Amino acid sequence: MHILVTNDDGITAPGLLALVNAMRPLGEVSVLAPDRNWSGGGHVKTLDRPLRVRETRLADGTPAYASDGAPSDCVALALLGYIPEKIDLVVSGINSNANLGHDVTYSGTVTAAMEATIFGVRGVAFSLDAPENYTGDLDFSAAADYARKIVELVLQNGIPPGILLNVNVPHLGKEQIKGFHITRQGLRVYRDRLDRRQDPRGKPYYWIGGDAPTGIPEYGTDVGALAEGYVSITPLQLDLTAYPAMQALSQWEADQKP
Amino acid sequence: MHILVTNDDGITAPGLLALVNAMRPLGEVSVLAPDRNWSGGGHVKTLDRPLRVRETRLADGTPAYASDGAPSDCVALALLGYIPEKIDLVVSGINSNANLGHDVTYSGTVTAAMEATIFGVRGVAFSLDAPENYTGDLDFSAAADYARKIVELVLQNGIPPGILLNVNVPHLGKEQIKGFHITRQGLRVYRDRLDRRQDPRGKPYYWIGGDAPTGIPEYGTDVGALAEGYVSITPLQLDLTAYPAMQALSQWEADQKP
Repeated sequence: MHILVTNDDGITAPGLLALVNAMRPLGEVSVLAPDRNWSGGGHVKTLDRPLRVRETRLADGTPAYASDGAPSDCVALALLGYIPEKIDLVVSGINSNANLGHDVTYSGTVTAAMEATIFGVRGVAFSLDAPENYTGDLDFSAAADYARKIVELVLQNGIPPGILLNVNVPHLGKEQIKGFHITRQGLRVYRDRLDRRQDPRGKPYYWIGGDAPTGIPEYGTDVGALAEGYVSITPLQLDLTAYPAMQALSQWEADQKP
Repeated sequence: MHILVTNDDGITAPGLLALVNAMRPLGEVSVLAPDRNWSGGGHVKTLDRPLRVRETRLADGTPAYASDGAPSDCVALALLGYIPEKIDLVVSGINSNANLGHDVTYSGTVTAAMEATIFGVRGVAFSLDAPENYTGDLDFSAAADYARKIVELVLQNGIPPGILLNVNVPHLGKEQIKGFHITRQGLRVYRDRLDRRQDPRGKPYYWIGGDAPTGIPEYGTDVGALAEGYVSITPLQLDLTAYPAMQALSQWEADQKP
């Protein structure tokens, strides 16, 4: 069992080291992660420039590779042969904020697992639901224990082909977490606002500002599970076809040519 | 009717101008597009740096805005208020290559329409299925006619909430195109290979190289429709939950704690 660990907070993030240590008892672990933070960076395939990879070490001395590509590029590099041995599983995280609802297509953590799935390799994304502006040291220990437990279940039972898992863990002590729920993708509520400023030379620039997103804590969803103190496991697929809409739209076919 | 036009090939791309001209008879048109090519750039929300926007003109003199953000950032900027008037519809393209199968989460063209959908605004992505290394001038005229026709249908009939349309047009003359099909997302076959090179100082760098992707031209899919000479219209949703997998995974819930 050979496990690739990556993330989107960058190679020095403590959540990455926590995930590496959680995976170590389960098999051989390789680490190839971005050299900087790629949060909100989306599902990238870098084709317009070459990528660099350098050898480095994590804080505990674990050998690792850092790349100037996105999280999904790191997965592609590894699976295209930068890591010569066969990779059986890709895990991504532990991200320091939750990836819920519509976050999944923006999230470097989740899109790294998507990239694995496209390569036909199982992928699991792990995120901790820490408050957006939390200033203390994050405690990844419960999330790391759940990550190991969930990967054990993946290895025992498999996951259906073409499916990745998006796992979010409450920022609680292990004793306070009630277990886990298999959930559907819920609804995020984005609260972005445009923040117009002037640079020292009087020219405008624009931050996507505002407040951290909230969510609708509906029962059965990722947002709802976290709100109740459960770990959320959402199976995701890469077929985005809106099948129920196809029938209504098929009536357009009568009206064929411009 | 106020239509925002953006793209991922950048503000100077001829496909953008073709789409602007196709939309003009349908309402007021605003243009806010990236100042460079963002192909394969994914669904980005740029939060770690501010964005610039400059006034410019398209090749025919049409006033336009260029931003250093991704296509999805351009949509967010416009809808967060950079363009003060209400936007009723966002169209993206015309991309110079097809966006089929698993391309949809990588594609700047498609993720721009996703961003509109997240804001509750209708979004439609348009791409031309030109050969990857086509050297002549691309002919966007048939794609532009179909774009206008399809947007007319969207305005007449609406599209279900939360759904965007991913439209791909064969690179054929208008007479050779047989009409359009409502399709499901098909399967891309990626043929990427890792291309290791040495820089002038002897250090390695890595291109994601190989051959352009192909696809499995199954009937009923986007790939299949193009192969038969039809325009493909695929309705996409942003709920990626793999509902059929939830039942199997729910058996894990018996095995609750690490």
